[in-house]
Amino acid sequence: MERIPTTQVSQHIGQRVRVQGWLHALRKLGGVTFVVVRDGWGTVQAVSEDETELTALSETAGLGAETVLALEGLVVAEAQAPGGVELRQLAVEVFTPVAETLPLPLNKRQIKASLPTLLDHAVVANRHPARRAVFRLAAGAMAGFRATLNGRGFTEIQTPKIVASATESGSNVFQLDYFGRPAYLAQSPQFYKQIMVGVFERVFEVGPVFRAEPHDTTRHVNEYVSLDVEFGFVANHFTVMALARDVIAGILETLQTGYAAELALLEARLPIVPAAIPHIHFAEAQELILQRHGVDVRGEPDLSPQDERWLGQWAQEEHGSDFLFVTGYPMVKRPFYTHPDPTRPGYSNSFDLLFRGVELITGGQRLHRYGEYLAALEQAGYPAAPFESYLEVFRYGMPPHGGFAIGLERLLMQLLDLPNLRLATLFPRDLNRVTP
Amino acid sequence: MERIPTTQVSQHIGQRVRVQGWLHALRKLGGVTFVVVRDGWGTVQAVSEDETELTALSETAGLGAETVLALEGLVVAEAQAPGGVELRQLAVEVFTPVAETLPLPLNKRQIKASLPTLLDHAVVANRHPARRAVFRLAAGAMAGFRATLNGRGFTEIQTPKIVASATESGSNVFQLDYFGRPAYLAQSPQFYKQIMVGVFERVFEVGPVFRAEPHDTTRHVNEYVSLDVEFGFVANHFTVMALARDVIAGILETLQTGYAAELALLEARLPIVPAAIPHIHFAEAQELILQRHGVDVRGEPDLSPQDERWLGQWAQEEHGSDFLFVTGYPMVKRPFYTHPDPTRPGYSNSFDLLFRGVELITGGQRLHRYGEYLAALEQAGYPAAPFESYLEVFRYGMPPHGGFAIGLERLLMQLLDLPNLRLATLFPRDLNRVTP
Repeated sequence: MERIPTTQVSQHIGQRVRVQGWLHALRKLGGVTFVVVRDGWGTVQAVSEDETELTALSETAGLGAETVLALEGLVVAEAQAPGGVELRQLAVEVFTPVAETLPLPLNKRQIKASLPTLLDHAVVANRHPARRAVFRLAAGAMAGFRATLNGRGFTEIQTPKIVASATESGSNVFQLDYFGRPAYLAQSPQFYKQIMVGVFERVFEVGPVFRAEPHDTTRHVNEYVSLDVEFGFVANHFTVMALARDVIAGILETLQTGYAAELALLEARLPIVPAAIPHIHFAEAQELILQRHGVDVRGEPDLSPQDERWLGQWAQEEHGSDFLFVTGYPMVKRPFYTHPDPTRPGYSNSFDLLFRGVELITGGQRLHRYGEYLAALEQAGYPAAPFESYLEVFRYGMPPHGGFAIGLERLLMQLLDLPNLRLATLFPRDLNRVTP
Repeated sequence: MERIPTTQVSQHIGQRVRVQGWLHALRKLGGVTFVVVRDGWGTVQAVSEDETELTALSETAGLGAETVLALEGLVVAEAQAPGGVELRQLAVEVFTPVAETLPLPLNKRQIKASLPTLLDHAVVANRHPARRAVFRLAAGAMAGFRATLNGRGFTEIQTPKIVASATESGSNVFQLDYFGRPAYLAQSPQFYKQIMVGVFERVFEVGPVFRAEPHDTTRHVNEYVSLDVEFGFVANHFTVMALARDVIAGILETLQTGYAAELALLEARLPIVPAAIPHIHFAEAQELILQRHGVDVRGEPDLSPQDERWLGQWAQEEHGSDFLFVTGYPMVKRPFYTHPDPTRPGYSNSFDLLFRGVELITGGQRLHRYGEYLAALEQAGYPAAPFESYLEVFRYGMPPHGGFAIGLERLLMQLLDLPNLRLATLFPRDLNRVTP
């Protein structure tokens, strides 16, 4: 008999079916045995009052949770059962017996393990339905990101991760031995995605980025997945913000429509993206904070996490929005390729998108003229030589352009309100962890 | 006026439109000036007999190829023009003037530059329509790969590229400084994709892989994009081969239907994938070579490039197929996680897919029992300790599983019959090159 996924069992009431997967749970209540089988997509319950049906799983057989098996049975509607159906009149075939006790139980609703245990045993812990749902949503976010951009004439690119020089500065970059010479891991695809605007005009990339930041916080890992966008012929950063809004809306719509089971399992309620996300200029944001909270942060070159939370509250109260664009960050705090605001000296054509008072996306308009780059590098105190290939592209015609980046794990952490970025990362790399 | 893409100009005959892009070509024939504008998707020709229309592009203005501009004009059907339309009654707006001579011309049908020049100036050379078409097809191949697998219940994953130990052996791996300790760049997502079979059953990944192989050939680069697949509950390698066939067919169908312009520009004729690709066992392939060519390669543990070409010819003559599966490669030449053929000692449940006599895909069934892994590592002479996390997953129940990998650039090189893998690589990394 052909196996069917557990998620399709309810379509076969009155028929015998075969499912395959892992022995998720096995318990006896009086003379009744409940078996839960988990496959790649869901779980299904099976019930037997006849011990001979389950000889393969009897105590004497010594098999435990995560044993890989096939289960055949009659599909019966049963209101009490999870999903409204269960299997009866069972026949079991064991593929891979497991006798060892798991490093952490996978069949409790909540994961009963400390974070270190969870991470040490991630190869098994990620099988837990609540963990798995997070990473299924990661796949959904990538799909929604791509679908939104493919629909607008963007081309997907894959740019090199081994690079000859650091993207933004020489610090916080991993160095490697490239056939006896030093090379580095790309901190972002920034330069390459800009270069590719010259080829395709509109590009995006989904790929790993590497940050050698030696801090150990709940909000940082050293390798993560970056969803990067860059495109040409923008008027200014507001063109970029409009696209960023649509991309976030597209991701959320993909999750809402295609990943309902995962969202329900995680009890996640996704936010609504306003048709136009409210925006506030950096300088006015500082004025607002003084006005509302009596704290004078004017003159500070950046917003603190507290500032961001206050602004998030304001967006919620004033605009009923979980989202807020802060625009015009001071040039001193933005990377050298940032386009200045032509009307407001010292400020830039850049933005952050705050989600519930926490930064979710950073982006802006970039410089596009060769001379501007030479001046910006000199201003930043960087030598031009390591940037030679990057600079070449600006000698041969680049349109006004801009873009943004979304950290995939950061997005999931915030949407799902996870307490640690590591919980949104399949196999996190941090200051102390490079396995599993 | 809103700009439209050049690819949509022919839908606006009789209307004035605005296009934006790069000055691809500018030439005078008598009193007539021909302007070709290239945007992110195509090119359009414009014609003027009135010099005052093109003052911005006059010789005195000193602007050259790749100047970024907007061009407005009336769309006129013109059988002589490329695409059957051209713009007249022109108005030009320059965004970014370019006065410098390009390092290589972008507006010749063929690229007139040596390979080193092309690669040194890839940031500009990739703008050439023929180069761009290759990388647009790369995007199409990724899209076709994902679409085929998403339609079959596969989940996309992104696994870490910084790893604690080498995947297959200690050689050919790039070492990096991870906060003062050694770490490595992943040679493949092999271990992680197998681990994730325990989570999602069916997974795929599109991402960079890193090979520190110190050879300088036309068929190798040191960083490339790998399209990886792994899935559970296979009967044996034939289940994997059936999926590999469908994935290749899905990729080709996506290219055929969505990328006709690129294929036409490159004069590429895509192959037909037979409903069932012919297959031959490794040992029989060696017998066949003896029979047909009088060369006795029996006992050799692998096929030579010449052997593969002969087999490709045979598949063409005997089966009319550009594709051939060779199955059952000797265990000694396959990685330690390869599943042996239970019926034929010394041979494995593995395969290569040859395309026109060259290897395109490698795959097979993997071991899935913990004890088998311990034995295989001992047999291979590897210590078990560096593989601890990987091995853990097999202690807790893995189904029979298998998978395969396709090198994206290799696929393009072979489909497009390119003479060098670097020509299918956006910004190649090799023994001597880590820029641009």
